[in-house]
Amino acid sequence: MAEHYENDRPNKTHQILQDVNKALENGMFVHVRRILEDMEPEDIAYLLEASPPKGRQVLWQLTDPEIQGEILEELSEDVKDGIVIKMDPEQVAAAAEGMESDDIAYLFRSLPRGVSRDVLAQMDSQDRARVQEALAYPEGTAGGIMSTDVVTIRSDVTVDVVLRYLRIRGELPEATDSLYVVDQNSTLIGHLSITSLVTSQPDTEILDIMDDPDEAIPVTMDGSEVASLFERRDWLSSPVVDEENKLVGRITIDDVVDIIREDAEHSMMSMAGMDDDEDTFAPILKSARRRSIWLGVNVLAALAAASVSNLFEGTLDKMAAIAVLMTIVPSMGGVAGNQTVALVIRGLAVGHIGESNTRWLLTKEAAVGLLNGIVWAAIIGGVVVWWKGSILLGAIIAGAMLTNLIVAGIAGVVIPIMLKKMKIDPALAGGMALTTVTDMIGLSVFLGLATVFLV
Amino acid sequence: MAEHYENDRPNKTHQILQDVNKALENGMFVHVRRILEDMEPEDIAYLLEASPPKGRQVLWQLTDPEIQGEILEELSEDVKDGIVIKMDPEQVAAAAEGMESDDIAYLFRSLPRGVSRDVLAQMDSQDRARVQEALAYPEGTAGGIMSTDVVTIRSDVTVDVVLRYLRIRGELPEATDSLYVVDQNSTLIGHLSITSLVTSQPDTEILDIMDDPDEAIPVTMDGSEVASLFERRDWLSSPVVDEENKLVGRITIDDVVDIIREDAEHSMMSMAGMDDDEDTFAPILKSARRRSIWLGVNVLAALAAASVSNLFEGTLDKMAAIAVLMTIVPSMGGVAGNQTVALVIRGLAVGHIGESNTRWLLTKEAAVGLLNGIVWAAIIGGVVVWWKGSILLGAIIAGAMLTNLIVAGIAGVVIPIMLKKMKIDPALAGGMALTTVTDMIGLSVFLGLATVFLV
Repeated sequence: MAEHYENDRPNKTHQILQDVNKALENGMFVHVRRILEDMEPEDIAYLLEASPPKGRQVLWQLTDPEIQGEILEELSEDVKDGIVIKMDPEQVAAAAEGMESDDIAYLFRSLPRGVSRDVLAQMDSQDRARVQEALAYPEGTAGGIMSTDVVTIRSDVTVDVVLRYLRIRGELPEATDSLYVVDQNSTLIGHLSITSLVTSQPDTEILDIMDDPDEAIPVTMDGSEVASLFERRDWLSSPVVDEENKLVGRITIDDVVDIIREDAEHSMMSMAGMDDDEDTFAPILKSARRRSIWLGVNVLAALAAASVSNLFEGTLDKMAAIAVLMTIVPSMGGVAGNQTVALVIRGLAVGHIGESNTRWLLTKEAAVGLLNGIVWAAIIGGVVVWWKGSILLGAIIAGAMLTNLIVAGIAGVVIPIMLKKMKIDPALAGGMALTTVTDMIGLSVFLGLATVFLV
Repeated sequence: MAEHYENDRPNKTHQILQDVNKALENGMFVHVRRILEDMEPEDIAYLLEASPPKGRQVLWQLTDPEIQGEILEELSEDVKDGIVIKMDPEQVAAAAEGMESDDIAYLFRSLPRGVSRDVLAQMDSQDRARVQEALAYPEGTAGGIMSTDVVTIRSDVTVDVVLRYLRIRGELPEATDSLYVVDQNSTLIGHLSITSLVTSQPDTEILDIMDDPDEAIPVTMDGSEVASLFERRDWLSSPVVDEENKLVGRITIDDVVDIIREDAEHSMMSMAGMDDDEDTFAPILKSARRRSIWLGVNVLAALAAASVSNLFEGTLDKMAAIAVLMTIVPSMGGVAGNQTVALVIRGLAVGHIGESNTRWLLTKEAAVGLLNGIVWAAIIGGVVVWWKGSILLGAIIAGAMLTNLIVAGIAGVVIPIMLKKMKIDPALAGGMALTTVTDMIGLSVFLGLATVFLV
């Protein structure tokens, strides 16, 4: 979707960012404060994300403390951590005041232990209880995502009674599309969509128009599974229940959208060996240290490939043309194999691949490798015959190419599935493992055949 | 009940898939039909996605025609095309009957021209008008995503009047969270959230509780921009207006979730040279043909690298150790550069990178390259001294490594940004272009230094 890159909103934000940068350089803090006053919290968050670390701190000082909580909610983890770490505990406590319980929990999880104790001490007892309740559930589960702000009603009342109750209650929690029907023990017995409420006659009993809660989310369900349920069922919100089917909270689509975005970004960034929390404008030392780990893994892979070449040092010594050509077969195998790896990673992520179809997929990818292997073996073989004037050398590289593309297809299916079984993230380790296999097999076969037939 | 979901959902689907496959093999079609009858349309879609092409056709024949439209709505493009292409025009027309206008447009866009004419001919005039209206807007714009099913009200009536109107009207369109307030010319003048409706006193005038429509979406807005607005504003739905501010439709979060998922998957799949519509279980020939294009691009890249080695054939002829080591520097440069490319692609996609901060980012990534270059130059240099017993060879590979990692950091920023300016998708072409640069620079510097100092 190339149109993706044609939208003008980023340009508008960058216009503001340029104005702000210029104003900051000239010390026109009042002017910047006025610009920020006209912006929505989520747009300020966007501005902060697009600023280098130093500008970020200055900008933050100039934002209205009243909306700092809302801004923090919108920031990505890395950026938020960088800001919160420099705030006083009282400031953090003040920012947390107006936040929803799920967002407070999210904020607190990123605070160092000492700081979060200090912040808790600054809060009033009611807020403190809300935070502790929200923190009781592990991050990344339904309990960690949910908000505890829910509106409950009884089943034996009429539409008119509910409407009168809501008018007295006033404002509803954000993104409320359903009211939850509970009995006197807080057990969830149904839910009533607000659209049913407004389209039903005033004297209708709730019992007659409520829906079954047959798909309430267990509080322990994994976040990605929650997201996948929302996506398939087109839900806007869903009740969350404990093991006794008591209502404990509610998950709304806006939090699910964040999970979907994060999961998808995770795959993309992991495949390049990057942390998906990585802040684009992170400090240099931090970035270098993080990325170094992945380069270290690749050093081992590169040395393994070099050791394979080393086995054939005698052959390389006798014929330099072989050294010139030896990178082609591993390169093609790596690219072909990574196509399969990307396909399988996505299939595993959305749950399309399982015991029932692995064998079919393996056969298919091996066959794709065979077909493309034949095509590219012929082409590369032809190029080499023409370039180096040796039919035998052309035949050797063609044979190695065919073998390596079939291996790439098979390894591209097997490696991610094996990694997943070993509880290693296939998006992170799959590409590197695949490339190591195709490098080593590609070099072995090409150099091995050359040694047998040419030297 | 909730326990239902405590099992891993994909495993459950694959359990059903295995049962279905076994039943199909034994010709127990009635049994399969009974299994399908108990499933939700979205779960059947899931089952179809996870089935190889042959099984898909048989399964489709066994689904209830009544819900085929709903199933089609949930399928990914590639899979849907495969099924629709084998249906009769009457069947397609019947399936389209109960669908929302945005989904009908989506379905029609994938039909071959002749087929869609036949299907239109099978429809009643009302449905035909709906389809033609929906098709009037280009795919991938707000107009192409929106549904035309909206509920409008006037501003000079009271809450009580609106409630009575809704009760007469009955069911509201799916995911309705707002009513749109229009004047007699259909000009959008505000919107009223249903939660405000139920929490306001019956005699309140709509004018007093409606929100300004200051952020209605123009019908021409790009789909990815719509998604990004929804994500930032936490909207559940938004009105769509034409250039005269007349209300023409509404976009709901469930369609936006699909766009977010697709955009994110697009980046991941493109980086591996794959089409994001690629069906995991696509026919072999189709897959091979599609992927071949990307392999063809890589052949050129691999041959370019080989030509660089070829320039140094004399050096390689004299010292086989150089041939053994020559893949290490390009490999490390490729991995480091692709980390930067992934970061920049994400930054461009979410709009964090623009004119205002490109220079900062370039300096940062070059510095990260320098730091990691020093670390890995020292390590690899040391390994080579120990392995090959030559301090000079160690120094040469260390120098090449340092140079290549700095180049990788700079190229990793410059290439995606340049591609974007040239309107080429950086997610698709960025990694390959980067690897070509780091391969060629890495080989040139390493082999060049070796030629000067060793031969």
